[in-house]
Amino acid sequence: MQAKVFRLSMAHPGDLSALAALLDDGTIRAAEIVAVIGKTEGNGGVNDFTRGYFTDSLMSLLARHLNRPPEEIARTVPCILSGGTEGVLSPHYVVLCRSAESLAPSESVAALAIGAACSGDTPFETVGTADHTRAVAQSVRAAMADAGIDDPADLHFVQVKAPCLTSDRIAALQAAGLTSPAPNAGVSMARARAAGAMGVALATGEIDESELDDREFLKNFDRFSSRASISSGVEVLCNEVVVLGMSPAWNGPLRISHRVMADAIDIAAVRGVFSDLGFSGALQVGAQERDRLRAMFVKCEPDQSGQIHGARHTMLNDTDIDPQRHIRGAVGGLVAGVAGDTRIFVSGGAEHQGPFGGGLIAVIAEAAEACKEGQAQ
Amino acid sequence: MQAKVFRLSMAHPGDLSALAALLDDGTIRAAEIVAVIGKTEGNGGVNDFTRGYFTDSLMSLLARHLNRPPEEIARTVPCILSGGTEGVLSPHYVVLCRSAESLAPSESVAALAIGAACSGDTPFETVGTADHTRAVAQSVRAAMADAGIDDPADLHFVQVKAPCLTSDRIAALQAAGLTSPAPNAGVSMARARAAGAMGVALATGEIDESELDDREFLKNFDRFSSRASISSGVEVLCNEVVVLGMSPAWNGPLRISHRVMADAIDIAAVRGVFSDLGFSGALQVGAQERDRLRAMFVKCEPDQSGQIHGARHTMLNDTDIDPQRHIRGAVGGLVAGVAGDTRIFVSGGAEHQGPFGGGLIAVIAEAAEACKEGQAQ
Amino acid sequence: MQAKVFRLSMAHPGDLSALAALLDDGTIRAAEIVAVIGKTEGNGGVNDFTRGYFTDSLMSLLARHLNRPPEEIARTVPCILSGGTEGVLSPHYVVLCRSAESLAPSESVAALAIGAACSGDTPFETVGTADHTRAVAQSVRAAMADAGIDDPADLHFVQVKAPCLTSDRIAALQAAGLTSPAPNAGVSMARARAAGAMGVALATGEIDESELDDREFLKNFDRFSSRASISSGVEVLCNEVVVLGMSPAWNGPLRISHRVMADAIDIAAVRGVFSDLGFSGALQVGAQERDRLRAMFVKCEPDQSGQIHGARHTMLNDTDIDPQRHIRGAVGGLVAGVAGDTRIFVSGGAEHQGPFGGGLIAVIAEAAEACKEGQAQ
Amino acid sequence: MQAKVFRLSMAHPGDLSALAALLDDGTIRAAEIVAVIGKTEGNGGVNDFTRGYFTDSLMSLLARHLNRPPEEIARTVPCILSGGTEGVLSPHYVVLCRSAESLAPSESVAALAIGAACSGDTPFETVGTADHTRAVAQSVRAAMADAGIDDPADLHFVQVKAPCLTSDRIAALQAAGLTSPAPNAGVSMARARAAGAMGVALATGEIDESELDDREFLKNFDRFSSRASISSGVEVLCNEVVVLGMSPAWNGPLRISHRVMADAIDIAAVRGVFSDLGFSGALQVGAQERDRLRAMFVKCEPDQSGQIHGARHTMLNDTDIDPQRHIRGAVGGLVAGVAGDTRIFVSGGAEHQGPFGGGLIAVIAEAAEACKEGQAQ
Repeated sequence: MQAKVFRLSMAHPGDLSALAALLDDGTIRAAEIVAVIGKTEGNGGVNDFTRGYFTDSLMSLLARHLNRPPEEIARTVPCILSGGTEGVLSPHYVVLCRSAESLAPSESVAALAIGAACSGDTPFETVGTADHTRAVAQSVRAAMADAGIDDPADLHFVQVKAPCLTSDRIAALQAAGLTSPAPNAGVSMARARAAGAMGVALATGEIDESELDDREFLKNFDRFSSRASISSGVEVLCNEVVVLGMSPAWNGPLRISHRVMADAIDIAAVRGVFSDLGFSGALQVGAQERDRLRAMFVKCEPDQSGQIHGARHTMLNDTDIDPQRHIRGAVGGLVAGVAGDTRIFVSGGAEHQGPFGGGLIAVIAEAAEACKEGQAQ
Repeated sequence: MQAKVFRLSMAHPGDLSALAALLDDGTIRAAEIVAVIGKTEGNGGVNDFTRGYFTDSLMSLLARHLNRPPEEIARTVPCILSGGTEGVLSPHYVVLCRSAESLAPSESVAALAIGAACSGDTPFETVGTADHTRAVAQSVRAAMADAGIDDPADLHFVQVKAPCLTSDRIAALQAAGLTSPAPNAGVSMARARAAGAMGVALATGEIDESELDDREFLKNFDRFSSRASISSGVEVLCNEVVVLGMSPAWNGPLRISHRVMADAIDIAAVRGVFSDLGFSGALQVGAQERDRLRAMFVKCEPDQSGQIHGARHTMLNDTDIDPQRHIRGAVGGLVAGVAGDTRIFVSGGAEHQGPFGGGLIAVIAEAAEACKEGQAQ
Repeated sequence: MQAKVFRLSMAHPGDLSALAALLDDGTIRAAEIVAVIGKTEGNGGVNDFTRGYFTDSLMSLLARHLNRPPEEIARTVPCILSGGTEGVLSPHYVVLCRSAESLAPSESVAALAIGAACSGDTPFETVGTADHTRAVAQSVRAAMADAGIDDPADLHFVQVKAPCLTSDRIAALQAAGLTSPAPNAGVSMARARAAGAMGVALATGEIDESELDDREFLKNFDRFSSRASISSGVEVLCNEVVVLGMSPAWNGPLRISHRVMADAIDIAAVRGVFSDLGFSGALQVGAQERDRLRAMFVKCEPDQSGQIHGARHTMLNDTDIDPQRHIRGAVGGLVAGVAGDTRIFVSGGAEHQGPFGGGLIAVIAEAAEACKEGQAQ
Repeated sequence: MQAKVFRLSMAHPGDLSALAALLDDGTIRAAEIVAVIGKTEGNGGVNDFTRGYFTDSLMSLLARHLNRPPEEIARTVPCILSGGTEGVLSPHYVVLCRSAESLAPSESVAALAIGAACSGDTPFETVGTADHTRAVAQSVRAAMADAGIDDPADLHFVQVKAPCLTSDRIAALQAAGLTSPAPNAGVSMARARAAGAMGVALATGEIDESELDDREFLKNFDRFSSRASISSGVEVLCNEVVVLGMSPAWNGPLRISHRVMADAIDIAAVRGVFSDLGFSGALQVGAQERDRLRAMFVKCEPDQSGQIHGARHTMLNDTDIDPQRHIRGAVGGLVAGVAGDTRIFVSGGAEHQGPFGGGLIAVIAEAAEACKEGQAQ
């Protein structure tokens, strides 16, 4: 198997024209699409409808190419979006494909591997609880199997989109005599992300089942997964999981690496992941090397201590701009400076995803040698 | 003469306790304060009252130490603030002092020089026009004379705070039968910044008097000053100017350098200014070297083309977050990553201040050798 | 002919389930839908994608029922949306239908009449100019003919959705060597609304062709239409026009009336339109009488003088919340207090739509006698 | 004793010029000022510094007139501000004075009475708990004694400003090994308001000490005070209490009345309070009668059910605009429509202040007969 990854721009959240063109000209076959991960230009909060708009548009497009109802495709092709293109960030989406085309086995020892899975609908009364975590872990294991990745050490990035509660859903729970696991939508989004991150950690062995305690969610940040990226949103009911890693069962020119960011300004981690992938030592990836970039995924979080390197920040007490909007903009600026490219998936809400106040970065790129070979042809 | 520069944190926009302590213990003498440049945690727009709050608090404090009325001090000690600490940025202020203490002339060839000037009140009907530009240029020349800087080539940073119109002031102009030079407050802020930048360019010779045409303001961005930093705000009536440069007439350990940023993600320019000042080549300035940092000033601007490195950004079309808030957050994240320090003066609205879509960065630091000597003692 | 009007709630901007149910059970026949006017929960600005999301979803639904491509339906069934449900306002849409069902001619002297028209695509270089105005006037006349309304005095509400420029479109104009009629997207939205309002005034005779001068747009507010409601947005290319009035050629129980609001707190105008329609004198329309309400349309505007009844307001100088969001919330609260109902189409940007600082309100309701007859059955 | 009430406009949050003029011309004597209640044009959230700015400016002004240090005055003259002048609301402040001037006892049976009290500093670990409630109740009783009001039935409005936690204060508590009573600043503000409202209810007998249980705060909204108005903010450490009521021990022309608002669009309650005070039956208070208005105080709250009169609102799920900003704007529009005047103190966060989803309104006005007498003179 061979992974193919396309990073495409959009003019607005309902604009799938770039993908439509690639489907039309045969560059992408609809049946090969495993998942789509994207960054839309909404506010990234509960009332960010750019995610639903893009998803509906994507599923309509795929429905035309696959001759299946859009609702059905939505259950098998995860479309995981993070709203918010603050600062220099550019709206875009990454199409992850699995092709049967295979190169000669000698050409590559290991290459990018992609897997996906969707859980059943999450009961609203479990959103953000330990039961939610167990359901996510089960889906991560299913996605690893789908990708042919046996060893958690080969995982570099696990993207989960988990449902959250809204005021309507909370009211429905209460009307049904059930206890809502969160007092409001904002808190629910955060708890769902925590439950999802712990689900990845459970699947990778970063935490043990005996250590799972949802009273620690959003409190004990010593527990985290270094490879989890969790979004939560009103528009999904199940847990959608996409795993990305390296596997000898796959071939082709694509590689992935990741680094943990110790804090929001950890430029060394950002530069480090480019070094891992064989990029030259220039401060900013140059125009020519940028062609190797296929996708950049970043998780980050406003430091809950209220400080960075000993100086106060104001993200947590701002009534005008959501803290997640603040941090996405800042980290996006930093990563864009290193990458020379603004089409970066930067997602806030990194609770338990990387260390307290920090986060993680994963990058997919064509192998340096593959590039040179290509140039030689 | 010797320049002394103190970078101080504040807990809120009315908190001058750090300066009060240094005045109380004699580290700073109130009469030596030439100017204060700071970053407060407002929205940076017309209705950002954190600037007025800080200024009133500062002038009350200085009034107690100088035994002069605060209104009078406000006319001789420029207090230039930029609102908005988006992302990782930290509220702080830089106190620029001029001390009569002098080292032996042999110790230093040239050192940081500071000068300041305030114009008379700007007639509201001239705000943002060529007349405004000429008034600013006159004040820049006065501030250079104050600093003992003869050659514009020795200037590294010129900070101007210029008045702008509000809806009240526009109504007053119209009531008086005068034409308002701007249709609303937002436009007036931008035009005042343009007029100020051209004023610096006129004083430095970057443009010639014959080239001055206010119909080009906010339109012809090929005309710019590479050393101008202009804020505009409702709380000043005159043009406050502070110049920073290098002069052999000054001594002491402080140095200043600046670089032009070609675009908002120009990490090479940011790193370059640290190299100019003799910082080691580490990707991020380390904890120990950070002690040399005295002030960082950055101007930036959302690229009006709507693109950065060929990819669309969304800053210009956002009804929820002002474009200037977006760009400050992004550039702040980038500079903090390099500096390892978040107390950075990042000011948006860089029209005609650096190239189109770009900006500039100036840094004050203790000379490397001075630091080593200090450690040797 | 008989008009039918349905006011339906939505759970999110892509939720057309209420209309789908009425189409499924035969209450509404898709071919009878003349236009849809709605209020979605976006920010109402340039980057409000809830309008596009709703429109795409509506056209997909109608396409399934009409067996025609959605793009084609979009050109013949105007879908005019105003984003922003600030304060108590509730997201909803009004489906305007024209039914061939006819009552005996004696039953009604005049009843609600509905007409619609779409112009050709508006050249971007004419957006917000006098040419734009002429094109809108032509479409209003076409919509009046479509409604069978001859006398402009019988018009009570003319809704226009006009295109505006974006930064991309401005860049395209400039690249093509054309002058952009607006410097940025925000200004373009306002100018497009002005051009549209003058277009209605031209068609109704409120202004004369000889008085049309686009240099007066957004400046001379003595020129206005008392029946125009103009939205502008990035998602349309043509001018979509819907006219609502009274005509003896129509029958059925529905009536429409309108009033001019002198300012944003003109409660007498709001109450007046309910009196016109025969509602009882209670301060708030009671639960039972509310069943007669079919649609409420309001246009309003933050007073550009900066004052209301002599006291300063802060809407025009707020960098955090757009002035239009402010005014929609305030006027929505006032009208909801009188109507006892929050599903009100309140649209800002009322330049030249009603008097300076004021606006207008139009209400569709079942005639009082019709209601009583209904109860008697 | 006689109450005097002055409602004054401000040009910005540091503008006390209107009060300064009245102090200078002897209309107000500084020593007679009991309290100041105002509405400043900030965002009303944790990072709203307009409250601190106004307070500092007020205390500086009073210090000059009273020859006492501003910090000391701040402890005896409550200055209670609510940030946020959304929509049509106008920034203003109400100066409540107690004059020794007395009319002949026969002239008035009862008149407006004013009292105030400040508690000691609230320990941060008790903010928003039952202990906080008891401290507030004690201060309410002290303020009633100060006003000479014995019977809680004569109370019409009790304004409390209570401290809340910030991220810094929460960190300090945790560093000290104490449990923070709230996870973040936003939640703390809400809990402090709940604790304060229950403190008023305890003092008035609306709840009994045995019914006080802080686990019910923000949950059981059946418990509320119909006369409590609670603000919370970072800028106070003690609980500041001002009580307003009617008392035969006072005389003069001023009267106060209040009504409970059943929901956010309860126009009947708003109109009712004007009827209570003898205003004529016009839909909007006319220009001449408006001269009688001295102060309007309103508390309101976005309905936590997510609905108003059965229709969904979007206030609770908005990431861009705080729910309290939404509701203030809407209710401000409604009350301004009835009053014909936009200088209204509309404060959100009405948890336990009036019924669930509703609130309350209190108005101070000159008695109708007093006005007529005045005109007769």
